[in-house]
Amino acid sequence: MKLPKGFTASGVEAGLKKGRPDVALIVAEEGASAAALFTRNLFLAAPVVLSKASLKKSRGRVRGVVVNAGCANAVTGAEGMAAASRVQEAASGLLGCRPEEVFVASTGVIGVVLPDELVRGALPGAVAGLSASGLEAVSRAILTTDVGPKVAEASFAWNGRKGRVVGVAKGAGMIHPNMATMLAFLMTDAPASPPFLREVLAGATEESFNAISVDGDTSTNDTVLLLASGQLGGPAMTSRAEAQGFVRAVTKVCRDLAWMIVRDGEGAARVMEIDVRGARSARDAKLAAHAVATSPLVKTALAGGDPNWGRILAAVGRSGARFSPSRTSLTAGCLKLVERGMPLPYSERAAARIFLGERVPLLISLGSGPGRAKLLSCDLGHAYVTLNADYRS
Amino acid sequence: MKLPKGFTASGVEAGLKKGRPDVALIVAEEGASAAALFTRNLFLAAPVVLSKASLKKSRGRVRGVVVNAGCANAVTGAEGMAAASRVQEAASGLLGCRPEEVFVASTGVIGVVLPDELVRGALPGAVAGLSASGLEAVSRAILTTDVGPKVAEASFAWNGRKGRVVGVAKGAGMIHPNMATMLAFLMTDAPASPPFLREVLAGATEESFNAISVDGDTSTNDTVLLLASGQLGGPAMTSRAEAQGFVRAVTKVCRDLAWMIVRDGEGAARVMEIDVRGARSARDAKLAAHAVATSPLVKTALAGGDPNWGRILAAVGRSGARFSPSRTSLTAGCLKLVERGMPLPYSERAAARIFLGERVPLLISLGSGPGRAKLLSCDLGHAYVTLNADYRS
Repeated sequence: MKLPKGFTASGVEAGLKKGRPDVALIVAEEGASAAALFTRNLFLAAPVVLSKASLKKSRGRVRGVVVNAGCANAVTGAEGMAAASRVQEAASGLLGCRPEEVFVASTGVIGVVLPDELVRGALPGAVAGLSASGLEAVSRAILTTDVGPKVAEASFAWNGRKGRVVGVAKGAGMIHPNMATMLAFLMTDAPASPPFLREVLAGATEESFNAISVDGDTSTNDTVLLLASGQLGGPAMTSRAEAQGFVRAVTKVCRDLAWMIVRDGEGAARVMEIDVRGARSARDAKLAAHAVATSPLVKTALAGGDPNWGRILAAVGRSGARFSPSRTSLTAGCLKLVERGMPLPYSERAAARIFLGERVPLLISLGSGPGRAKLLSCDLGHAYVTLNADYRS
Repeated sequence: MKLPKGFTASGVEAGLKKGRPDVALIVAEEGASAAALFTRNLFLAAPVVLSKASLKKSRGRVRGVVVNAGCANAVTGAEGMAAASRVQEAASGLLGCRPEEVFVASTGVIGVVLPDELVRGALPGAVAGLSASGLEAVSRAILTTDVGPKVAEASFAWNGRKGRVVGVAKGAGMIHPNMATMLAFLMTDAPASPPFLREVLAGATEESFNAISVDGDTSTNDTVLLLASGQLGGPAMTSRAEAQGFVRAVTKVCRDLAWMIVRDGEGAARVMEIDVRGARSARDAKLAAHAVATSPLVKTALAGGDPNWGRILAAVGRSGARFSPSRTSLTAGCLKLVERGMPLPYSERAAARIFLGERVPLLISLGSGPGRAKLLSCDLGHAYVTLNADYRS
């Protein structure tokens, strides 16, 4: 997949992970407008603190993005900040821009200061390798426990031309010996200001990356970045209403990446698509969806392909959402399991077909209120435990 | 272990579970004052609805308790209520008391109406088998996936005599094909009114059964019942201050049973004893403790005996508790892992000794505030997944 106009990228081996690409470089040849969203975890990794401040200082202008796997550079204090800054400075020297125009992101082990000399040593090679078809290299260099790379694209019309949005991500879920991260980078040739990009990204994230749950944990390093080169031409976008196609394209790319992240949840075999409707409020719907998405009992039942509606209702019942059990219905795929609080007879075979599929759509109806929430989650099986428990740090 | 004065009990096979005792009967020969706490799940099982109403109607007077395993009689509507009522009536006929003086509790499969004819058929045998040493039979008849029975006792002084509190419980955690329950029954010979018992039980439950987390799920049937025969004699207890010994005894029995329940969490190998101190408020401390206790990443690391402090801090960081990362410290056993936001070097062997033990004490210090919370949790390993995923309903 080619990058949108105005971008080049590459991925190289810096020696952080043995025999695997571990540093990615994305460059906006003539600079890009940028907007980013970061983790809400109170333990912020050094690259998150630095990139947040840099984006403010550059007023949303980015020339290059340096991402490394193998070390999160989190809980590393002043030393970690200095290491991240040295990477930023080295990259800005090579790209001929100001340090604050370089965005940095890290993923990997917590509590270890980034060996920045390795990253800096790899940057000249990364610059030399930059190409418009470098997306695949990026998608591989940012992976940790992910099963495979995650890329998505969408197009939109603007000013009579066809623009593109391309995204690349690495998965949520945790790795040995500590915690990993969700990173997503979106690039577009759309002409847009940083504030407008931020508005679009916030909306798209709300219904994609913020609507997934692999294990309920939020990393110290989670980052979503949207870069716009503007090389499509035409007037700058200023409102979501007039740039509907663009908004839809960004949302689609975020959603596709989010689905891949859940599908690739550590050791996951299937994705549960939870849709709560009829709640008294959006908050009630969210509470119910979140309780189902994060219940270890629901997730282990899903791993076994077990149509265990009792666990699903029980999770809703303890979620804190206000509802009446006697008005609650549950449908999986096209199979109604519970109607107004009473279980219905169902065929084992029909249920198995649904619960053993790759997508398990669950519709939970809590009444006739206006509240609705959608959430993706994955199963929790032996592979998850193996990835997360069966080694020692 | 003998029952306190005034109580007899038995356990019999009713045929709900093949070849295993599945119905327990506890009788207060001359009646007992009673107080109970029930699940906060909105899906209330029929026995919970019935026992709640009966206790109100009898003004906290109980003659007999009928507990069955094998069927939760939850999400069963009017039919389930009728079945539970028939058990209550049959037992009251045999015991010669009013129906509302019979307390019923169920555990097992959700969505199946209690086959009450089986329970009623077993009651005459249960009555015939009543004895002061029937506690062990009760402890076995109420089990589901529990590894073994759970009983605890404590004594107290009142009016110059030695009184006793004896408790029996079955574990939280979920069973195939649906959801199981935490049930606990405490009996004492103390002289006390239902309102006073309620006050004592609420306090004891807050720091025992409400301070444990096996999988974050709350059942439709969870019930804790405290019965007092008064046969110790002496004036009725009226204030916690003058009955401190009794309060301590009830709390100890609840705590011991709670620890056993967590230790016996489905497939669990060790108990994590989380102690959060120095939080800005009790609520902040609870949020932090709860996030650590329920994090699948922390729980899987614990299954592997992995001193993964990164996951613990990350869980605290996303918990919603207000705190400053740079003032946060973490100690496991007597080993300091993180001091004021910075990791400390530690010996692998010393860490392994702590994290591979049966009790893993974690002290999380968030600053110098007054907020404190203690919570017990267990690990999440392959055995949990096997119990909860590896079969089909």
